[in-house]
Amino acid sequence: MISIFDQHLDRNDANHVPLSPVSFVERSAEVFGDLWAVIHGKRRFTWAECRERSARLASALQHLGVKKNTTVSVMLANTPEMVEAHYAIPAINAVINTLNIRLDAALLAWQLNHCEASVLITDREFSPTITQTLDILKKEYDKELIVIDVCDTEYTGAGERLGQYEYEALLQAHAPVAHLQGPNDEWDAIAVSYTSGTTGDPKGVVTHHRGAYLNSVCQALTWNMPHFPVYLWTLPMFHCNGWCFPWTIAMMGGTHICLRRVDANNILSAIKEHQVDHFCAAPIVFNLILAAPTEQLAGIHHKVRGMVAGAAPSAAMIEGMALLGFDVIHVYGLTEVYGPAAVAVKRNSWADEPLSEQARLNGRQGVRYSLEEGMTLKDSDTMADLPADGNTMGEIMFRGNIVMKGYLKNPNATQKSFAGGWFHTGDLAVMETDRYLKIKDRSKDIIISGGENISSLEVEDCLYRHPAVMACAVVAKADERWGETPVAYVELKTGKQVSAEELLEHCKAHLANYKVPRDYRFEPIPKTSTGKIQKFELRKRAASQD
Amino acid sequence: MISIFDQHLDRNDANHVPLSPVSFVERSAEVFGDLWAVIHGKRRFTWAECRERSARLASALQHLGVKKNTTVSVMLANTPEMVEAHYAIPAINAVINTLNIRLDAALLAWQLNHCEASVLITDREFSPTITQTLDILKKEYDKELIVIDVCDTEYTGAGERLGQYEYEALLQAHAPVAHLQGPNDEWDAIAVSYTSGTTGDPKGVVTHHRGAYLNSVCQALTWNMPHFPVYLWTLPMFHCNGWCFPWTIAMMGGTHICLRRVDANNILSAIKEHQVDHFCAAPIVFNLILAAPTEQLAGIHHKVRGMVAGAAPSAAMIEGMALLGFDVIHVYGLTEVYGPAAVAVKRNSWADEPLSEQARLNGRQGVRYSLEEGMTLKDSDTMADLPADGNTMGEIMFRGNIVMKGYLKNPNATQKSFAGGWFHTGDLAVMETDRYLKIKDRSKDIIISGGENISSLEVEDCLYRHPAVMACAVVAKADERWGETPVAYVELKTGKQVSAEELLEHCKAHLANYKVPRDYRFEPIPKTSTGKIQKFELRKRAASQD
Repeated sequence: MISIFDQHLDRNDANHVPLSPVSFVERSAEVFGDLWAVIHGKRRFTWAECRERSARLASALQHLGVKKNTTVSVMLANTPEMVEAHYAIPAINAVINTLNIRLDAALLAWQLNHCEASVLITDREFSPTITQTLDILKKEYDKELIVIDVCDTEYTGAGERLGQYEYEALLQAHAPVAHLQGPNDEWDAIAVSYTSGTTGDPKGVVTHHRGAYLNSVCQALTWNMPHFPVYLWTLPMFHCNGWCFPWTIAMMGGTHICLRRVDANNILSAIKEHQVDHFCAAPIVFNLILAAPTEQLAGIHHKVRGMVAGAAPSAAMIEGMALLGFDVIHVYGLTEVYGPAAVAVKRNSWADEPLSEQARLNGRQGVRYSLEEGMTLKDSDTMADLPADGNTMGEIMFRGNIVMKGYLKNPNATQKSFAGGWFHTGDLAVMETDRYLKIKDRSKDIIISGGENISSLEVEDCLYRHPAVMACAVVAKADERWGETPVAYVELKTGKQVSAEELLEHCKAHLANYKVPRDYRFEPIPKTSTGKIQKFELRKRAASQD
Repeated sequence: MISIFDQHLDRNDANHVPLSPVSFVERSAEVFGDLWAVIHGKRRFTWAECRERSARLASALQHLGVKKNTTVSVMLANTPEMVEAHYAIPAINAVINTLNIRLDAALLAWQLNHCEASVLITDREFSPTITQTLDILKKEYDKELIVIDVCDTEYTGAGERLGQYEYEALLQAHAPVAHLQGPNDEWDAIAVSYTSGTTGDPKGVVTHHRGAYLNSVCQALTWNMPHFPVYLWTLPMFHCNGWCFPWTIAMMGGTHICLRRVDANNILSAIKEHQVDHFCAAPIVFNLILAAPTEQLAGIHHKVRGMVAGAAPSAAMIEGMALLGFDVIHVYGLTEVYGPAAVAVKRNSWADEPLSEQARLNGRQGVRYSLEEGMTLKDSDTMADLPADGNTMGEIMFRGNIVMKGYLKNPNATQKSFAGGWFHTGDLAVMETDRYLKIKDRSKDIIISGGENISSLEVEDCLYRHPAVMACAVVAKADERWGETPVAYVELKTGKQVSAEELLEHCKAHLANYKVPRDYRFEPIPKTSTGKIQKFELRKRAASQD
């Protein structure tokens, strides 16, 4: 017998709409149409204008043959066009593929071929690399793309036009689509983003409209973000779709402050000029700010809130930002969970702790986002839940709506990553007694010395507390006696000096003896464009330099 | 051909969970288990305890035969049991029906029969009414219920036990269910709530898990609510499931401050004792606070945020709260959209306006919630969109995920309310040039005098600005010459006096002449339990008193 609650109570146009973050753009254009959506140097667009430009782009792409499930790749800095791409491409049920602008041509060509891109929107700053990329695509993959050049008037550097189309001309040539709206099925793909991939081929993380909607929402919830935030684009938008913030800012009627180049002066000038109140970044960006000259730091009299993730920040960094008066929250995630999906929620009682203890507490990966269904610590093999004892190490796993569809054309990797009904992050952590998680290491970054596990992060955290250290990374090198021993790579702050002996003494004073590196190397540390240190490079170096 | 984005990228346990607000309870129990969930006089429960009690209630109800789509009705004040009912009943896929505790036995019996309730959880304070209700149910409908009595130790008044079961004993007798979790289908019914119904039979508004989840989230977004709010239950939880706040507070790890009886002293004492920072209420509650003695108002040194809805607040009230230092936002909605689904978002530029203009701007119904797909002004018959000219009157309509499934066992009313793919609110409004909506009247409350429309709200707003007026309501009475003319019912503040002549002069000074009531009646105004003035009663009075 059908229940009374299932009779004549079906979905209809009035009471059911598939979730899609695109809907936020229409709303802001409708009710906050006169407010600034995007500011990029002299270029400024209101929400009505931003929506219209996005609707023109959507229309232009349709005319170029883009339809449901067509991949549109973008090679863009944090410019208005990058924002518009996030609004236009999903609105025609196509899939946005944001390319990492620091990658080399071979890898870009591999990705463009793998995700079967039809269209590439590219900023002319990247023409040298893209010229090569298109060349490789043609020669190695027999593949051609429709190329749209972006000629940002705020960019005055070198770079040829490459494509058949120019972005602004294309916009002018096409009347806007009537509505920016999501797909009929909220499970449809919205984006494919390649993980940096330390070994082997990169994996294409496919996300969906439902998850992007919910994580856009959850970013605002996690930050209890007020209406009309002024948001600075220090985080590359190509990285996990800017952690969904292109859509979060639309939802809150905020203003995107674009930034082509991330340096301390640009950041601090923008904060002062536009009264920026929110920004996200990897720890390296926070360290840039901390290392800025006093005169650049002066003149900020409003509250600025930073969200840090991408790598575990050092306690010293969190402490430094707090002393500067910036309010920093620490979040944790991966591309597979749409950027951050966990946060070290600051409990009220922490305010009574000394600053160093607050920094330690905040430096943890924390608890799952409120809209993520599960995050826990498990034995990777048995899938048993592990105790919240601060000691037992296991793997962080997620489940819920803020988890990818899977890896593109890679069913084996997908299946493996979802084994047992949880997404396996590959991050090793402990759960402290308050159930906040603390990463000890990436599985592959742990150093096993004389049978003891050494957390490279713990050693790095100690090094970061030395006043001369700007950046550092600790990796394993093979050792006949111990199996592995730690090697420390160190970059110093401008004008500072420290010897290997002094760092050794510093580490001995703060770490158990078996964890102390005996080998210090003062040299530039290789990093990805998002500020992640490339430990696999350092491991190769450590192995070869001996 | 199947797209690459649809191959091997299916939903699974790791990446898809039906939306249900019940999940917030599990999360808070898991990660904020030691924080206070509920405070009710001497009774206090942490999130771990609240979850356990709810899980015991879920288990007990299952043992009493409650299963998917079973209706469980509750006749409860704002007590811990009412919170637990909102967590336990949806967690076993049953449907919660919150009864209005001010209704008479005949209407309660009608509703219990109509929604086919099997179980009634009832506070012994309401035993006199419920005794009669059960009697009518038996005699008129040949229906019996399983009755569970709540004997709240914070209630010391009269009232017999009526049922076979006592709430606390039942909890102790049943081991908790393993997990509080949502249904397999997020479209399943979560609640049925009866609209007060000014004429004819009440309608049973059936809501679903998806909508309740999204509106719970949207309440926090709209209020940019921080973690760990201290939330005072001035709004009856029986009213639209407390606008979804039982779940919102769970999501934010907040504390429910219960309140059996809403009066100014109780409210202000609770605010001071527990450092309450958020509460919701109808305008009448705000007026109670404004009218409180100075000594009760003294001693509040923290920011208190109020959300007002249920009837359009007068500008005078909004202005008064601002002067008191309370931060009030004005929201608008109906049971059919889970409580509020629109808000007068305060734009930054409003801060430069004089307070009276701010009050006018805030007094509007505003714009749709960020997670509601559409809200607009339409011609009720043609469904044409109406211009944002501040002048053209039309009907407010909603569409999106925060809209009910429909009316229970009432396909005609459902179909009519969803005609043309929008939910018809029955509220008449204009859209101002900034696209904020302003209600002019309920369709049935408009007064048509000499062919001119008189907005009863506008006249009431004027009366509220008189310092002696505590409450007022303006309704139509039949008039031979004009068709209808306005009659003003007025309640005065304690210790204040004013004559009909003085009110007439006051209205003449502020209103167009044809809108000024000539007839003033100083007498108690009938109100529903949620503070809504019962204009249909007043219209009857106005007609008969002549």
